[in-house]
Amino acid sequence: MKRIGVFTSGGDAPGMNAAIRAVVRTGTAQGLEVVGIRRGYQGMIDGDFIELGPRDVANTLQRGGTVLLTARSKEFMTPEGRAKAAQNLRDAGIGGVVCIGGDGSYRGALKLVEEHHIPIVGAPGTIDNDLYGTDYTIGFDTAVNTALDAIDRIRDTAASHERVFFIEVMGRHAGFIALEVGIAGGAEVIVLPEDPTSAHACAQVIEASASKGKKSSIVVVAEGGYEGGAEALARDVKLCSGIEGRVTVLGHIQRGGSPTAIDRVLASRLGAACVDALLAGASGVAIGEVNDEIRLTPFKEAVEKRKDINRRKYELAKTLAL
Amino acid sequence: MKRIGVFTSGGDAPGMNAAIRAVVRTGTAQGLEVVGIRRGYQGMIDGDFIELGPRDVANTLQRGGTVLLTARSKEFMTPEGRAKAAQNLRDAGIGGVVCIGGDGSYRGALKLVEEHHIPIVGAPGTIDNDLYGTDYTIGFDTAVNTALDAIDRIRDTAASHERVFFIEVMGRHAGFIALEVGIAGGAEVIVLPEDPTSAHACAQVIEASASKGKKSSIVVVAEGGYEGGAEALARDVKLCSGIEGRVTVLGHIQRGGSPTAIDRVLASRLGAACVDALLAGASGVAIGEVNDEIRLTPFKEAVEKRKDINRRKYELAKTLAL
Amino acid sequence: MKRIGVFTSGGDAPGMNAAIRAVVRTGTAQGLEVVGIRRGYQGMIDGDFIELGPRDVANTLQRGGTVLLTARSKEFMTPEGRAKAAQNLRDAGIGGVVCIGGDGSYRGALKLVEEHHIPIVGAPGTIDNDLYGTDYTIGFDTAVNTALDAIDRIRDTAASHERVFFIEVMGRHAGFIALEVGIAGGAEVIVLPEDPTSAHACAQVIEASASKGKKSSIVVVAEGGYEGGAEALARDVKLCSGIEGRVTVLGHIQRGGSPTAIDRVLASRLGAACVDALLAGASGVAIGEVNDEIRLTPFKEAVEKRKDINRRKYELAKTLAL
Amino acid sequence: MKRIGVFTSGGDAPGMNAAIRAVVRTGTAQGLEVVGIRRGYQGMIDGDFIELGPRDVANTLQRGGTVLLTARSKEFMTPEGRAKAAQNLRDAGIGGVVCIGGDGSYRGALKLVEEHHIPIVGAPGTIDNDLYGTDYTIGFDTAVNTALDAIDRIRDTAASHERVFFIEVMGRHAGFIALEVGIAGGAEVIVLPEDPTSAHACAQVIEASASKGKKSSIVVVAEGGYEGGAEALARDVKLCSGIEGRVTVLGHIQRGGSPTAIDRVLASRLGAACVDALLAGASGVAIGEVNDEIRLTPFKEAVEKRKDINRRKYELAKTLAL
Repeated sequence: MKRIGVFTSGGDAPGMNAAIRAVVRTGTAQGLEVVGIRRGYQGMIDGDFIELGPRDVANTLQRGGTVLLTARSKEFMTPEGRAKAAQNLRDAGIGGVVCIGGDGSYRGALKLVEEHHIPIVGAPGTIDNDLYGTDYTIGFDTAVNTALDAIDRIRDTAASHERVFFIEVMGRHAGFIALEVGIAGGAEVIVLPEDPTSAHACAQVIEASASKGKKSSIVVVAEGGYEGGAEALARDVKLCSGIEGRVTVLGHIQRGGSPTAIDRVLASRLGAACVDALLAGASGVAIGEVNDEIRLTPFKEAVEKRKDINRRKYELAKTLAL
Repeated sequence: MKRIGVFTSGGDAPGMNAAIRAVVRTGTAQGLEVVGIRRGYQGMIDGDFIELGPRDVANTLQRGGTVLLTARSKEFMTPEGRAKAAQNLRDAGIGGVVCIGGDGSYRGALKLVEEHHIPIVGAPGTIDNDLYGTDYTIGFDTAVNTALDAIDRIRDTAASHERVFFIEVMGRHAGFIALEVGIAGGAEVIVLPEDPTSAHACAQVIEASASKGKKSSIVVVAEGGYEGGAEALARDVKLCSGIEGRVTVLGHIQRGGSPTAIDRVLASRLGAACVDALLAGASGVAIGEVNDEIRLTPFKEAVEKRKDINRRKYELAKTLAL
Repeated sequence: MKRIGVFTSGGDAPGMNAAIRAVVRTGTAQGLEVVGIRRGYQGMIDGDFIELGPRDVANTLQRGGTVLLTARSKEFMTPEGRAKAAQNLRDAGIGGVVCIGGDGSYRGALKLVEEHHIPIVGAPGTIDNDLYGTDYTIGFDTAVNTALDAIDRIRDTAASHERVFFIEVMGRHAGFIALEVGIAGGAEVIVLPEDPTSAHACAQVIEASASKGKKSSIVVVAEGGYEGGAEALARDVKLCSGIEGRVTVLGHIQRGGSPTAIDRVLASRLGAACVDALLAGASGVAIGEVNDEIRLTPFKEAVEKRKDINRRKYELAKTLAL
Repeated sequence: MKRIGVFTSGGDAPGMNAAIRAVVRTGTAQGLEVVGIRRGYQGMIDGDFIELGPRDVANTLQRGGTVLLTARSKEFMTPEGRAKAAQNLRDAGIGGVVCIGGDGSYRGALKLVEEHHIPIVGAPGTIDNDLYGTDYTIGFDTAVNTALDAIDRIRDTAASHERVFFIEVMGRHAGFIALEVGIAGGAEVIVLPEDPTSAHACAQVIEASASKGKKSSIVVVAEGGYEGGAEALARDVKLCSGIEGRVTVLGHIQRGGSPTAIDRVLASRLGAACVDALLAGASGVAIGEVNDEIRLTPFKEAVEKRKDINRRKYELAKTLAL
């Protein structure tokens, strides 16, 4: 292997640039040429490639988003599109590829590996932390801290007005962000896709809090924790209990921003480990960090298995809301 | 005057605590006793008063929200409610009051002054900056910086995905936050209540930006800048042009947080000036800062006159979006 | 056990309040009374105790420092002092104690356990992360992110002026902060107590960086990484190579601030685990988190064994500085 | 005038990029070509010029430092150096120049104007706010907020340990940062070059604070407020009173970071106004903002006159430290 490619795909996540930088610098240190593929799979099909040396990734470590851009590609969903992508990689002399993205990106990579035998390894770049085979994904810690900062702000208003607030955080299928931010933000209720609750049960906890002297309450709701999200939950809580609450949907602010230290270090390690894995002949595997050790997980397993939230943390959250 | 009261009312704003602290410490330095009235006008009616000495406001300068709490009061809307409030103030020996709040709070204060001859002066505590008689209101600078931080984050995603984003900021009747944050955030379009635009015109600017090579655009929309807000504008822009955009409504995060330096200093000056004004015999006036000088404006004028946005800044915003 | 005490000791660390809150709320949930001991061991000697219920720790989760205060105590260094402390605890009916602090605090606790058979368990509250028996200490992640923010700022100036900067971070005996922040901040050189370097070697790396086209360099120096710290290293580098650098000593800003999500969650878990451990009859042990599991380590081991930095991370840092 | 140049000089300040962007975009909108001169006066002598179009300054608004770099130039101190610089400008067809920098930069510009009749206007880019002819300089608000954030962190430690802290902020000749941050940070003592104090007087205030029940104190010291800075003051206070304090010198972290909203807006306005002024035939003048209006001040006046701190704010600071 003399030349490798690197791309980002799916939703952007803070730390993706740190991972790209690590791939470029580790690759170069190992004597490889590194090519950036822009706009994910679409750029692979379009041959949108650029050479990347160590200086080209200078001053990117601290930036949110991805300097290689990201995009959806319908064309890649077709066998013809993938064939074109594979051909472009071969034409460019790219002998191995690092894919930085989430679960959809891994599925695409798996197809390229299976259909065209392109060696690809993946690094988990997604704020949702819902990938099997790694304790944390790149971007998760930043997203949690961004959401936490927002909750701290809203708490000022909640406390001053003695009000109930419903705050929706990202997480359609997984409650990792909601759980972490719920504990860290001192939420009275945390609503997760992993343990759906009823408006009635939610109202009861708020009322119990009030009876213990809490004049304001924070309810953290994962997008997928209640049908219709925080807006619907607030409406239904009002219907069944009369409790009036304000709603804030944090939305896209959770995606961006300069990555935290943890995300920069994790991205750096995983990016470097991807290059090591490619050089060691690995393909079709996701690189993760489990108990502070690098671990390789086949893409198939990474996308099919489900990582559960930490149930003890979830129980703890309830105790601490006392 | 031996004893004065201080209260916060209306929506909370960062810096309110700095203003309370300044009233307490300046008052004490002038030989006055200071009483905190909790929960705004409702607390005035309920006699929810607490003595405040210099140590009681220690460590509050940097906190968002208001330690005196704030609330709406329907009872105060009635002559009986106001009579009760006035009687409570008199019974507590309170000879003058500092009201920290927005335009609704000033209207309430004006009634108390007119109907019950209680000396009251006001300090402009509202994030919206829509009060006549002061260049800036307490909380505005913090709200602008909070919104700006959110826009900087969203720009990471917008740039990475080459997308259009519609971001709604506070401002139902005034576009101060939208204008400031639009310039500071490098928005391609700023939609203000002071200069309503059509979805068609908005789409044209986005298209013109794209034709100049901009792959992503930020549209900052004041709540009152478009009927239905950012959500409606995004929908209508798509209808009339096909341009697809994402929407984020910043909402309540703009209210909270530790105040910026400017807000802490402004609140400190205005809080102190309120005490000076009361001691000088002023009543029924709002205290503001205009061109770095303290200025007194009758409540009537403060609530009736409209402060316009800076039109040259608005023109500048368009040039800079080049 | 019906009544437990909790105190903080040694240097303050962000997250100490989250740990106190967790002790109080978990303890209360388990039917215990919780007593706060103010000013560490000195307060134990002075009998400076306060009852703490769930509401008393409301709104402390997000605050830096420690609401129970901390202090040094010479008196506690004497057998008489410790006897008095133990007597006070017994007189107050305190049947077990949670000590939140660093390695000196653990040594003190060990003496109380050995000499007076007071059941004590410890939670690792120190920004330095230099405690054996836990992957991370409470406050470490916040300190790293605070230092990182400072380095990001300094990099702006370093890049604009094309200068070399020597930045000193905390860590007299351990380089955890320096290593983490060095990788995350993209430092060209990281100087650790665990691997002392010469000014000459440091100068060579800076020169090599310059020859690769880097116009500015960041050198992160742990306090104990070079005799005399960053100031001395900069001076010696200049002497031996002529390279001129600026120096910034981050100092106490690394201690304070609102804790990050990780620190709040870690502190919450460890605080709760301390109560569980006391109830299970544990004493003389430090509670830590290793590979996401709670682990108990005898105080003796916790203070005598040394936790090494991650050597692979350290190697990675050098590769990434390419 | 068909072609103008723009450069940054002296210490970098947050917002310089926003000013460059405004010059480029306003210039382009007016039909001018804009040339970036890199590394200040040295780049002028070296002919280090680059063409700048609207897209070249995209995504720079939010960045600290200066993308045009800055440097000292000994050569420019000589008549020959300046002649070469002027010749290069003429050779490049540059008919007017915008200089963004502090008082030394203005002096250099004045020489070029006088000796070589190059039309130059200046925008005040310096964190110190010590330039006559403008209420605020570009970068001041960001520096103040950065210092304030540091003080808020240190206060956590000061309060937890009940200690006295001496914090040194920038300001060799002017106390603007110290005064603003002192009020906003709730300092017990503020030491300014404009009103030097003795260690004895400082100690008295700290002792008076302690006698009023304040267990911790913050002393903010401008670099030039005490011979030897905060370190010397702390030492002398200890000598004359026995009061022990900790010292933190904030240093270079005050220079960098993403600019605040105020600095971005101010820089945008002043950058645009510089282009307008050049087109209107102005030269040898500094552009400032006074009472929200653009004002032109001859360089000579701008560098010779001294802007005083606001004495009423200074008095207020003392009252609020009650």
